[in-house]
Amino acid sequence: MASFCYSRNVKIILRKINDHILLKGCHRNVSEVSNAWDRVPLKDVQRFIEECMVKVGTSPKHAKYLATNLVAADYRGHYSHGLNRLDMYVKDIETGTTCNDKEPSIVKESVATALVDGNNTLGPVTGNFSMNVAIDKAKNVGIGWVVAKGSNHYGIAGFYAMEASKQGLLGMSFTNTSPLSVPTRAVKPTLGTNPISLAAPARKDSFVLDMATTTAALGKIELHDRKGINIPNSWGVDSRGKECNDPKPVLESGGLMPLGGSELTGGYKGYGLAMLVEIFCGILSGSTYGPNIRKWRNTTTVANIGQCFVAINPDAFAPGFEDRMSDLINTCRSLQPAEGEDKVLVAGDPETQHMSNCDKIGGIPYHPNQIQFGIDLAKKLGVMEMNVIKNS
Amino acid sequence: MASFCYSRNVKIILRKINDHILLKGCHRNVSEVSNAWDRVPLKDVQRFIEECMVKVGTSPKHAKYLATNLVAADYRGHYSHGLNRLDMYVKDIETGTTCNDKEPSIVKESVATALVDGNNTLGPVTGNFSMNVAIDKAKNVGIGWVVAKGSNHYGIAGFYAMEASKQGLLGMSFTNTSPLSVPTRAVKPTLGTNPISLAAPARKDSFVLDMATTTAALGKIELHDRKGINIPNSWGVDSRGKECNDPKPVLESGGLMPLGGSELTGGYKGYGLAMLVEIFCGILSGSTYGPNIRKWRNTTTVANIGQCFVAINPDAFAPGFEDRMSDLINTCRSLQPAEGEDKVLVAGDPETQHMSNCDKIGGIPYHPNQIQFGIDLAKKLGVMEMNVIKNS
Repeated sequence: MASFCYSRNVKIILRKINDHILLKGCHRNVSEVSNAWDRVPLKDVQRFIEECMVKVGTSPKHAKYLATNLVAADYRGHYSHGLNRLDMYVKDIETGTTCNDKEPSIVKESVATALVDGNNTLGPVTGNFSMNVAIDKAKNVGIGWVVAKGSNHYGIAGFYAMEASKQGLLGMSFTNTSPLSVPTRAVKPTLGTNPISLAAPARKDSFVLDMATTTAALGKIELHDRKGINIPNSWGVDSRGKECNDPKPVLESGGLMPLGGSELTGGYKGYGLAMLVEIFCGILSGSTYGPNIRKWRNTTTVANIGQCFVAINPDAFAPGFEDRMSDLINTCRSLQPAEGEDKVLVAGDPETQHMSNCDKIGGIPYHPNQIQFGIDLAKKLGVMEMNVIKNS
Repeated sequence: MASFCYSRNVKIILRKINDHILLKGCHRNVSEVSNAWDRVPLKDVQRFIEECMVKVGTSPKHAKYLATNLVAADYRGHYSHGLNRLDMYVKDIETGTTCNDKEPSIVKESVATALVDGNNTLGPVTGNFSMNVAIDKAKNVGIGWVVAKGSNHYGIAGFYAMEASKQGLLGMSFTNTSPLSVPTRAVKPTLGTNPISLAAPARKDSFVLDMATTTAALGKIELHDRKGINIPNSWGVDSRGKECNDPKPVLESGGLMPLGGSELTGGYKGYGLAMLVEIFCGILSGSTYGPNIRKWRNTTTVANIGQCFVAINPDAFAPGFEDRMSDLINTCRSLQPAEGEDKVLVAGDPETQHMSNCDKIGGIPYHPNQIQFGIDLAKKLGVMEMNVIKNS
């Protein structure tokens, strides 16, 4: 009963946090942050997540992988994939839906490829293992293409791509997810938000694309509903598969639209890209796929999600990759902005701005409800609270 | 002078053909075809293109590569990339802008990667060479990732991807193109339509995604302008970078919008995908890239386009790939269609329907102006006319 009450409270708190995070919209997926928020030093968020996970039975090594991933998400401004989801991972381990006593293993491999079985470990455990295999292969033969079955939610896709770009390689990562997106001309959610990520190193700089293949995230539609305002075109369909500006029917019996929106505005391309991701993840790996994946927010059945990790060594191709990368992204950044626009950005720039802000203020700014969630969880698990620095 | 008149006539004829091809819209990029059109057997289109190219100095081998690619485009219903473009390739060879006496070569390679120099050969020559290298590597070590510089327009991207899928492999192909697309928040066309293609084999079936990373093709906007009708949202911007429903300012001083359209409807993702393609093509290969690529319709300077070709061997991963592929695509095809929709499709289905129709009627149906273009070109070059089967 205590557990039930806790969960219900957490649910309400998380909903409030979500509302606030999404309040001003999420241009380029990075959330708007209030300067009035208190902050927590990165190291202490990391420590807190690790301790919570270890307390429920996760090995310190696995807890560290998870914490590193969630902290990276918050640091980059993707609050929906950070501390906000700790509750889910805690529950996954507490209930035994995710294993805490196994390690991922290589099922089959060549010099350039591998099939990994995540053995139902935490997503970031399978993800780190698989990406490291890809990176090693790319260093040896120019490319590593690794697919994993038996995985779980792995946080932000960009994290794994960036593990490669930090080492001077191009990195890519893809994951299938619970069915939320309605294929063009259909009425039923059949594919996931299936993200695509590419990180490419430039001179003291980088390009980091990390995008769902749907137009918008589910959370953004939920927020519009709670605020009682319409959603833009291209975001969602109702139960008849019709593009819809009222968020209610989208949430109740419809689904997300693929990137591009309607068929007339190219939605079949977003649908095709979601299939591409599913082919790289579920179909290549032999995990669950498409409509067979457990529904979103179902944490009682094993996920057996499929993922794909690619590393490419630019040294295997034309010399001067990073110079050309810098030239391309700086060319884009220097473009004349349209009337009313501040600056032309490239993928990864909003995240860089968010990280600079965190560095400047000495930590990650969190919404008060998120801070309260941390305090409650610390009490519940008997873990030291996060070191909150008050906004002065 | 004769040459000038010929070119002007051809231009007018091609414009008329283009109008007709696009007349009823291009759902999923496949053109609407009239059952009243006369048809030409595939073999004879192939023969005709080969003879025209050889007549202006192309080697029979190169002419065959080009013809096979253009015939595949028309057969699949992508008329914009078939016989319709023969004039451009003829001119490229006639003027010496593209080489007819060289072969592509491998500059650098590993067991899984290669950098190819197309040596300014016809796009399909570089494309076939590179894709074959990728396929060989995928058969040996599970994957082949090949990038090419010094290439030219290579026809439909899907052609190369399908070369791999015909052999039971997954195939991908990407190319950079002339700057036509305006990055999110910018005002100037900076990136190309940069297509992404993935072909994956299923049981006696396949998935073939072949999509530009812009919402719409330039030709579709030109057609709306000539018909005096507005374009949908998400297609184009004016010279101030503002989304625009009047096709005129888009064509005169604006540009194409990335897939997704405006920032609010996810256009920054299409912009990110166009960058991804540019990174795989121009940046990895060291060819020209982004705004440095020669303008569309400029055929007087060497293109030095960059392309990327990937083959992946599903045997390197979980057994049963084709079974799962068939299950996924048949699941999508069996989905209940939305009201007013005939059937849910997967990428490649419209093309399969077009090919079936060609087989049924004994050839590729061509618009009368396209047939006339063939007759004129045959006369000009002294080549035997195409064998046109009258519609009875």
